[in-house]
Amino acid sequence: MGKPYVRLDRNQAAMLLVDHQTGLLSLVRDIDPDRFKNNVLATADVARYFGLPTVLTTSFEDGPNGPLVPELREMFPDAPFIPRPGQINAWDNEDFVRAVKATGRRQLIIAGVVTEVCVAFPALSAIEEGFEVFVVTDASGTFNELTRHSAWNRMSQAGVQLMTWFGLAAELHRDWRNDVEGLGTLFSNHIPDYRNLITAYTTLTKGR
Amino acid sequence: MGKPYVRLDRNQAAMLLVDHQTGLLSLVRDIDPDRFKNNVLATADVARYFGLPTVLTTSFEDGPNGPLVPELREMFPDAPFIPRPGQINAWDNEDFVRAVKATGRRQLIIAGVVTEVCVAFPALSAIEEGFEVFVVTDASGTFNELTRHSAWNRMSQAGVQLMTWFGLAAELHRDWRNDVEGLGTLFSNHIPDYRNLITAYTTLTKGR
Amino acid sequence: MGKPYVRLDRNQAAMLLVDHQTGLLSLVRDIDPDRFKNNVLATADVARYFGLPTVLTTSFEDGPNGPLVPELREMFPDAPFIPRPGQINAWDNEDFVRAVKATGRRQLIIAGVVTEVCVAFPALSAIEEGFEVFVVTDASGTFNELTRHSAWNRMSQAGVQLMTWFGLAAELHRDWRNDVEGLGTLFSNHIPDYRNLITAYTTLTKGR
Amino acid sequence: MGKPYVRLDRNQAAMLLVDHQTGLLSLVRDIDPDRFKNNVLATADVARYFGLPTVLTTSFEDGPNGPLVPELREMFPDAPFIPRPGQINAWDNEDFVRAVKATGRRQLIIAGVVTEVCVAFPALSAIEEGFEVFVVTDASGTFNELTRHSAWNRMSQAGVQLMTWFGLAAELHRDWRNDVEGLGTLFSNHIPDYRNLITAYTTLTKGR
Amino acid sequence: MGKPYVRLDRNQAAMLLVDHQTGLLSLVRDIDPDRFKNNVLATADVARYFGLPTVLTTSFEDGPNGPLVPELREMFPDAPFIPRPGQINAWDNEDFVRAVKATGRRQLIIAGVVTEVCVAFPALSAIEEGFEVFVVTDASGTFNELTRHSAWNRMSQAGVQLMTWFGLAAELHRDWRNDVEGLGTLFSNHIPDYRNLITAYTTLTKGR
Amino acid sequence: MGKPYVRLDRNQAAMLLVDHQTGLLSLVRDIDPDRFKNNVLATADVARYFGLPTVLTTSFEDGPNGPLVPELREMFPDAPFIPRPGQINAWDNEDFVRAVKATGRRQLIIAGVVTEVCVAFPALSAIEEGFEVFVVTDASGTFNELTRHSAWNRMSQAGVQLMTWFGLAAELHRDWRNDVEGLGTLFSNHIPDYRNLITAYTTLTKGR
Amino acid sequence: MGKPYVRLDRNQAAMLLVDHQTGLLSLVRDIDPDRFKNNVLATADVARYFGLPTVLTTSFEDGPNGPLVPELREMFPDAPFIPRPGQINAWDNEDFVRAVKATGRRQLIIAGVVTEVCVAFPALSAIEEGFEVFVVTDASGTFNELTRHSAWNRMSQAGVQLMTWFGLAAELHRDWRNDVEGLGTLFSNHIPDYRNLITAYTTLTKGR
Amino acid sequence: MGKPYVRLDRNQAAMLLVDHQTGLLSLVRDIDPDRFKNNVLATADVARYFGLPTVLTTSFEDGPNGPLVPELREMFPDAPFIPRPGQINAWDNEDFVRAVKATGRRQLIIAGVVTEVCVAFPALSAIEEGFEVFVVTDASGTFNELTRHSAWNRMSQAGVQLMTWFGLAAELHRDWRNDVEGLGTLFSNHIPDYRNLITAYTTLTKGR
Repeated sequence: MGKPYVRLDRNQAAMLLVDHQTGLLSLVRDIDPDRFKNNVLATADVARYFGLPTVLTTSFEDGPNGPLVPELREMFPDAPFIPRPGQINAWDNEDFVRAVKATGRRQLIIAGVVTEVCVAFPALSAIEEGFEVFVVTDASGTFNELTRHSAWNRMSQAGVQLMTWFGLAAELHRDWRNDVEGLGTLFSNHIPDYRNLITAYTTLTKGR
Repeated sequence: MGKPYVRLDRNQAAMLLVDHQTGLLSLVRDIDPDRFKNNVLATADVARYFGLPTVLTTSFEDGPNGPLVPELREMFPDAPFIPRPGQINAWDNEDFVRAVKATGRRQLIIAGVVTEVCVAFPALSAIEEGFEVFVVTDASGTFNELTRHSAWNRMSQAGVQLMTWFGLAAELHRDWRNDVEGLGTLFSNHIPDYRNLITAYTTLTKGR
Repeated sequence: MGKPYVRLDRNQAAMLLVDHQTGLLSLVRDIDPDRFKNNVLATADVARYFGLPTVLTTSFEDGPNGPLVPELREMFPDAPFIPRPGQINAWDNEDFVRAVKATGRRQLIIAGVVTEVCVAFPALSAIEEGFEVFVVTDASGTFNELTRHSAWNRMSQAGVQLMTWFGLAAELHRDWRNDVEGLGTLFSNHIPDYRNLITAYTTLTKGR
Repeated sequence: MGKPYVRLDRNQAAMLLVDHQTGLLSLVRDIDPDRFKNNVLATADVARYFGLPTVLTTSFEDGPNGPLVPELREMFPDAPFIPRPGQINAWDNEDFVRAVKATGRRQLIIAGVVTEVCVAFPALSAIEEGFEVFVVTDASGTFNELTRHSAWNRMSQAGVQLMTWFGLAAELHRDWRNDVEGLGTLFSNHIPDYRNLITAYTTLTKGR
Repeated sequence: MGKPYVRLDRNQAAMLLVDHQTGLLSLVRDIDPDRFKNNVLATADVARYFGLPTVLTTSFEDGPNGPLVPELREMFPDAPFIPRPGQINAWDNEDFVRAVKATGRRQLIIAGVVTEVCVAFPALSAIEEGFEVFVVTDASGTFNELTRHSAWNRMSQAGVQLMTWFGLAAELHRDWRNDVEGLGTLFSNHIPDYRNLITAYTTLTKGR
Repeated sequence: MGKPYVRLDRNQAAMLLVDHQTGLLSLVRDIDPDRFKNNVLATADVARYFGLPTVLTTSFEDGPNGPLVPELREMFPDAPFIPRPGQINAWDNEDFVRAVKATGRRQLIIAGVVTEVCVAFPALSAIEEGFEVFVVTDASGTFNELTRHSAWNRMSQAGVQLMTWFGLAAELHRDWRNDVEGLGTLFSNHIPDYRNLITAYTTLTKGR
Repeated sequence: MGKPYVRLDRNQAAMLLVDHQTGLLSLVRDIDPDRFKNNVLATADVARYFGLPTVLTTSFEDGPNGPLVPELREMFPDAPFIPRPGQINAWDNEDFVRAVKATGRRQLIIAGVVTEVCVAFPALSAIEEGFEVFVVTDASGTFNELTRHSAWNRMSQAGVQLMTWFGLAAELHRDWRNDVEGLGTLFSNHIPDYRNLITAYTTLTKGR
Repeated sequence: MGKPYVRLDRNQAAMLLVDHQTGLLSLVRDIDPDRFKNNVLATADVARYFGLPTVLTTSFEDGPNGPLVPELREMFPDAPFIPRPGQINAWDNEDFVRAVKATGRRQLIIAGVVTEVCVAFPALSAIEEGFEVFVVTDASGTFNELTRHSAWNRMSQAGVQLMTWFGLAAELHRDWRNDVEGLGTLFSNHIPDYRNLITAYTTLTKGR
């Protein structure tokens, strides 16, 4: 009757991390660098924690755009990694699309730099091919708030769902009882306020 | 001819207050704490003033998330209160859904913490089941403006109507003449500027 | 083929000014008072300049909400003025709806205080009855940006077109040659930068 | 299956630069002048670099609105330039529409001042006639953020796609290998951070 | 050797609350109303909790400035209350100065509306007479941040110490052990985050 | 004992309005144009209301800087008006200094455009000559907040007192009883919130 | 002749970390939590890297204020740690002052929560006793910008020097050649942009 | 009698440009990159236009900090350029101090990256040696507003005068008549609004 809830499912979702390269990151100014670094690593931790098939790609990494940040390579040593020789839209690269399709997943979670290009272009292409697309807004960066909101608007009008890494984790996990410690650790590592809650709680209860 | 106005009706609406817990509230940083506390209590006052069936729920309240703020428990001593043992989406908890459906209402007003999870998830689930869903944006808090606007976008695209507690009260009340003093008191208690207007007015007219 | 451009037409449009009352104006904090006063008076000037049928209304003006600001009464001495005895949604007042319909116009331009109530409610009602509705966003005020954007979202999803007073004037005027001096004066009176352009231009060219 | 990706194509797109006049530019206050000047010149450079047919127009340039900024005239010496004698909506000017249609393009990229008038009006008219319309949000300026977001909302609801100059360039170029130096120079000239990346890269590698 | 620490002493300090009147409060726009109301009441609670001699005064309260907010009158039923018949600087009113001097205190804590007038003027006068003056910046409001910082600059250059209500309470209390519950209650009533900390702490420890 | 309160005295003060010219005003972007226009006119009204000797000056007004805004010329038809042929610091112009000294006043109130040049330079020069200098911060405009605060810092360190037009009026007036209606009118004309207070007050009391 | 440069010296400086406790941290809202956590840990890393004698203290840590964040305890296992039983100003605690004086240092670097109390109070006390005091502004947090700037003003007027952790490190290190890798690692761990610079540099040069 | 006006004199001033290197510039986030690039180049243009002796220096430019931006090298081909091998405070480098002293100037204008280190350190050192120091605040960048204001405070308390490039130019030039075209061109090249004023003025007057 109502509109269906297109809900993330850990068995249906794949993670695409696009162009988090050292040079391109210096262009990101709509999110504070400390927060942005944390958001990107948290998103990667979510992918790893839920065992999502993950695809890494870079744009022209031998030039000024620079290499992928080493943390991401280290976190996904076995993931397909597609350094694109020139295609700006990752979806224009056949290896990338092949890697995405090889995951067998229909829900694509995308994060990248910069939002209106490296994220929006493959998102729109994937929508066109019938995928359900979720963009991690806080792990995707761009020049300023004006460019961010232009990109969000275009993607949203096309059917992309805007998520954040925390919402992602929560929607994939479904129930705390699936693993209290695992999710708690994830939150503790990436949300200082949550870490403080856990420290205070543990301190007060450990002696009981 | 035009688009129907899906209007709140005090005889059709129920209030769902989701996860206003002491620990989770420390995560809310998109609204100033003084204002947010006021908005949440005002929303609760609206529910009570209009006699809306109200359902309270919490997420994992024995852990770091902490207990429901005591004011809400005290304001709704007879309301169903469903402490969820683990389900992140309240709609995944059968007791909660049963309590909601037991109200017999088709208009669900939802406020909670944090917006993109504890509010958005049940809102999307309820839409799917054909409910009319209204989210109280100023009584729902989250990490920052970026996460707020991501959550608003996702909910709005799914058909949720974004309201504020003041709009809620006004749409439910319909006509000042239904109870001038009651609504005036509600506004005076939660809007300092309105309280000042009433004080000035009363001072100037009481002697006449 | 494409989507029709629902364009303001000076022969089809009416102006509805809702609840710009002294008390309610103290609630407006999403727009600076100097700017807001200017925007409201500019919107009224637009209505007068284009000869739009105009309807004034107030909510409960004998109480703390206070009287309509005198400037508006003075600018529209012959306009229907409907002080509502209690209805919060002006459209719930039969006199108001009768006055609106008596204008014979199908395009309704609405400005008022506060946006999510006094503007949004009649806007949604008018949409339902098949009117084309345009809200003057910068002549409509509310508590803060959060309440503003909630209101905009609800109205926009229902089909309301969001305009500003300057866009209004430009869309109604169509062509500068219809009256250069008239429109120029309107802009000069309400846009300091435009006044400066005209002063500089006149100073440099008057001697030629 | 999914929604088609309406993608800019250098062989299908034309650029319309509307009313970047010295006087009107003093009205632009939603974007810092240094950034705005850069965005407008970057947008023009994009048009020139990709050889897009370009149409220039001005509103009433003999009056206070002032002349087109000289840089744009100089960059497009052979482009049709239509100084409108009075029409506020450029699409109401037959010469302008004729010039647009003479390009033979179905994708119109529009930038101008001010957003809610000089950009939105022709955008809505072009949509109505079945064109695909892309607005360059960061090369279009207006009074403040409130007027900007009103304009964006109206255009977006009508089907306009919101782009920025950087996204424009990237979507038109498709592949770095089409011309690394050309695109790199474009970015270097208009993105200080990108220029620094190139300088550092070149310094470190030139000796190798 | 170093600069002496001019430290608040509960036996040396008096509280002066200047012109927190219903009308003047509508002028305050540099602090959100919910927060400002809380700050003013917190400051009054501090005065009462530490038993500071308190003087209340108003400016022209029979006119548009309106009456003192009732809460302050009720909190200090026995405090000298000097409605000034016309003097804008409270220090120009002999009754006020007499009441201040009757407290026998040399440290004056001042809060009021608006900062650059009702607070700054008596602060500068009191400095001239050799008092140590502390202004409660967050319980003093004005038109906007520009006027606030002008006022702060003028007062600070004259030797006023800028404090906040929380710093005030902490400096007057000196040691939690003087009264844990009293200070805790004060903080719980006026700092939502602190209230949550106490609720969480109490919930976890009460059963032990 | 304490630091003397250097207080404005209507018999000791003169007003210097420096370079409020049409062209230079387009450079002002640290204060919204509607507010800034109001602040400048309010400052001028204060000078006129208190009968302060006033000196007007402009910088190179035959060039792009443009003419003085006409309102100021009209408000002070008999004031010395010194169009400077080239000196950037008005104090470098002998006619200006002569006009200032001819007022016989030792307290100089300065407002102008842009703050760090047209205001700061004569302020520093006047300080050096032993004048007491007060700058009207909200009637002085500049490029952005960074330039504003640099200018304030330099002036404040040199001994300039930072005031706003409202503080100015209040310090000069001293006592409402000197002229209730006059000051009330001044405030009503330049502070929308104050106008509303007066309208509401008058409406409620006029019938008594 | 000029004013002496009071410069940090690694052989003269000690670090005082005051009240970075889990509960108090939830009060900090003037700095984003991700950034603040990073700043505090960076400040601690600076102390450790330069071998500064460090003193840790907490306020009432058995109550709602909560324990010191574990990272700080772990980083300074041998540092004096003074849990204050009640004194709000750490300088009122004899053990704390004794520990500070035992360092034999005359330059005290202070960071803590909240700025206007836990930092400002001991800073003012230490100044009074003739210490040179440096406050790490970005590792000290408080409720909002208003409270921050009040605290800064009070401290600065008393002679405190406001520093940031980066300035601290740079002033203590003096010369990169003292240890390029050590300082580089410190910066890489706490400044994402700097880490990217190093990664890009290393990638480009490692093969040479 | 009053405080002397320490005024920039083109015959007494030298310009020191410190560490505007490609890598360090990616750390600057308190000023938008387009504006910052413009401010730095404008400052350099000022130095060149007034023929100020200029000294360039860099910090560790063979490492990640990167080379000086090429524009500055090209603008001052004959200026002393001191690449510091390690000293963080340029004043610790004997060659740099020697170059500064060789200019024979007593007024030092400093701009650099980052403000609290590369600017503040040599500024404080130069003050100590009796130089008059002026910092160009808008051509000096740092991490964020908090670090900027900490740096400003420290420098200002030590006697540094905070200037902007526009104030610099105006104070050095003294009188437009010294060279109208030269200063006009400088402003036209770096202030878009000023360029527009000149274009409009020239267009209107050239035909006369």
